[in-house]
Amino acid sequence: MSSLLIHNIGMLVTPEGTEARRGVEQGKVRVLEHAWIYAENGEIISCGDRNMPITMGQKLDAGGRLVTPGLVDAHTHLIFGGWRQNELAMKLRNVPYLDILAAGGGILSTVKATRAATEDELTAKAAAALDEMLAFGTTTCEAKSGYGLEKEEELKQLRVIKRLNKEHPMDLVPTFMGAHALPPEFKENREGYLKLLCEEMIPAAAKQKLAKFCDVFCETGVFTAEESRRILQAGLDNGLTPKIHADEIDAIGGSQLAGEIGAISAEHLIVCPDEGIERLAEGGTVACLLPATSFYLNSTYAPARRMIEAGVPVALASDYNPGSCPCLNLQLVMNIACLKYRLTPEEVLTGVTLNAAAAVGMADKVGSIDRAKQADLVIWDAPDLNYLCYRLGSNLAHTVIKKGEICHG
Amino acid sequence: MSSLLIHNIGMLVTPEGTEARRGVEQGKVRVLEHAWIYAENGEIISCGDRNMPITMGQKLDAGGRLVTPGLVDAHTHLIFGGWRQNELAMKLRNVPYLDILAAGGGILSTVKATRAATEDELTAKAAAALDEMLAFGTTTCEAKSGYGLEKEEELKQLRVIKRLNKEHPMDLVPTFMGAHALPPEFKENREGYLKLLCEEMIPAAAKQKLAKFCDVFCETGVFTAEESRRILQAGLDNGLTPKIHADEIDAIGGSQLAGEIGAISAEHLIVCPDEGIERLAEGGTVACLLPATSFYLNSTYAPARRMIEAGVPVALASDYNPGSCPCLNLQLVMNIACLKYRLTPEEVLTGVTLNAAAAVGMADKVGSIDRAKQADLVIWDAPDLNYLCYRLGSNLAHTVIKKGEICHG
Repeated sequence: MSSLLIHNIGMLVTPEGTEARRGVEQGKVRVLEHAWIYAENGEIISCGDRNMPITMGQKLDAGGRLVTPGLVDAHTHLIFGGWRQNELAMKLRNVPYLDILAAGGGILSTVKATRAATEDELTAKAAAALDEMLAFGTTTCEAKSGYGLEKEEELKQLRVIKRLNKEHPMDLVPTFMGAHALPPEFKENREGYLKLLCEEMIPAAAKQKLAKFCDVFCETGVFTAEESRRILQAGLDNGLTPKIHADEIDAIGGSQLAGEIGAISAEHLIVCPDEGIERLAEGGTVACLLPATSFYLNSTYAPARRMIEAGVPVALASDYNPGSCPCLNLQLVMNIACLKYRLTPEEVLTGVTLNAAAAVGMADKVGSIDRAKQADLVIWDAPDLNYLCYRLGSNLAHTVIKKGEICHG
Repeated sequence: MSSLLIHNIGMLVTPEGTEARRGVEQGKVRVLEHAWIYAENGEIISCGDRNMPITMGQKLDAGGRLVTPGLVDAHTHLIFGGWRQNELAMKLRNVPYLDILAAGGGILSTVKATRAATEDELTAKAAAALDEMLAFGTTTCEAKSGYGLEKEEELKQLRVIKRLNKEHPMDLVPTFMGAHALPPEFKENREGYLKLLCEEMIPAAAKQKLAKFCDVFCETGVFTAEESRRILQAGLDNGLTPKIHADEIDAIGGSQLAGEIGAISAEHLIVCPDEGIERLAEGGTVACLLPATSFYLNSTYAPARRMIEAGVPVALASDYNPGSCPCLNLQLVMNIACLKYRLTPEEVLTGVTLNAAAAVGMADKVGSIDRAKQADLVIWDAPDLNYLCYRLGSNLAHTVIKKGEICHG
């Protein structure tokens, strides 16, 4: 048996429970001062601010610092080949996106580079990103396929996720997203790709147990709400829980569909209408908001406050990808959520821990400092939660603990 | 004699010369591929992409990475006691700034904490910030007093800067900014403080050779343009070059004054009118823009493009301070400048190197990779300059070199 006692915690802050927190609950967190946490075999046994257990096991002095649950990044496109830095320079010169696409840029250039990469190459590249995410305090992350856009290539991406989940300390949650774009081969044959998705790709990903979720990009010019419904239903028929990229640029019914079909989460939601917010609240769907993407694209910010007021649980994620958000740092996401969504530090913390865990179906295991959850914890170079959200641009993660083991710091 | 040869540089990018670059020159940089840099005794001797010198001295393999000049942070309030994280939480609850001030917050709380701190305490705290700045690629930084607001307390801050300049690898450039706010003791006696500033504090800072520049916060509710002129003139009379915080919230004549009095730089300039831009261009004043502050305060962004078009050299700095910008990371400043000012990566690089060096009177020594300048260099985990500006939230500084010595990485 291995055990870990973290003592001399200046402030312990955590949401509580195994379900997403909504409404005023999103901002209610447990705060303990002068606290300790005791874990055995990678699992939290107890925590408190008095009656600290006596142990012969490993002890870790938190030095009076802040401790929170390890962060959960509920939305990443982790597995991709290449980068797209030249598009930034083009965008800054006001080259239209369609011209960038025509010049071989945009998402299809990432598809090309991802198809050209071997599994080993994709694994090494993603592992380096995971190392960095851990160093910033992320201990669980969702990862999507979606740059293969053909059966074997999508399965290749999902196998990389599976391999990293075994080989890397990070917990990874796999999402099939073959419906990320229409592949060039099917430009004149939408129905052909929809059939391929629903009848071959989704069943294969599910049968090989390579995915837990099925996601779709429901957007003008990508997949309509009706096509999205068909794809997500095929996922459901194969045991994959729905997720949906909805209302990022145009509100074409994605958020309503999310609530109606019982999606576990809906992503982006920048232009989510009131009716969509109602459907999300009714469906118990987590709104997975991506503030760094709004920042990066100079778009507006999702109506996070209205969602919280309507009783929709809000999660916050990075959207790490090579096009619209080459950022894997959840601390920066927390800053942007405070400053631009005007969420409180407590609401933001719940958004990157418990609600994010709920968005990826992991709230029974991670996302809070509760008995029987994994001992996934961050000791921060910060005296309190306000400080963590207030400082900008520094990496404040002092020690990162995954399943009771120190993996950074 | 010590020497350093950096070889296997994938791409070397630098502005050139010993003067601020303006207009189209701001975006013109020298680019060498497959390059090397040779330095002796901390000074650049030569660089090129062929005929690499043969040397028995130290060699450093850049691994095909990007190399630029070390970054110069031309505007920081480095020396302060305390932090103000609780104000963020108050601001997010929409508590008005005047109420925060009345509750003991705002700049006067930093004045109180700075006065209460010893020189050793201020030195240790600032040294930790400098360590972090170096790790992000900053090798020269300006630092202001301005949280003492009385003679001995301002001199205390300036002595800390002097000491850090000796003890820390970072080059520090000291600015006297006793005119940062009206101290509480003079609330009913503006004239008394102006006299103290002009007749005692400025002469003392100058006589003790503790400052190179004199700065003033020219803003509604702080110092008027006429008061600012009087303070900067007193600085000039004592050999201190003028700088000015101008047009941050209200355009009350600060930028015009900057140009007329020949300030080396004008700072913020968020609401700078066309007439102010003309005066800056005529005066040869560097516009020192602070994009992370606009981001943090949710204010608008300075008209950087109009300034460049008008022939004003643009520098970019962090404004690191505990109130409006608790950010010391110039890489993030570069991102924001690209994304929000829509400056090109080349213009941004010049803004954080040569033009920043010019803003602090150091362009003869730092800010470019030119013969006889200090060997202040950064090897970046990036293949090219576009990538450095495109990636967000990661620290891409791989190796930081100060005067020919590796000081980080």
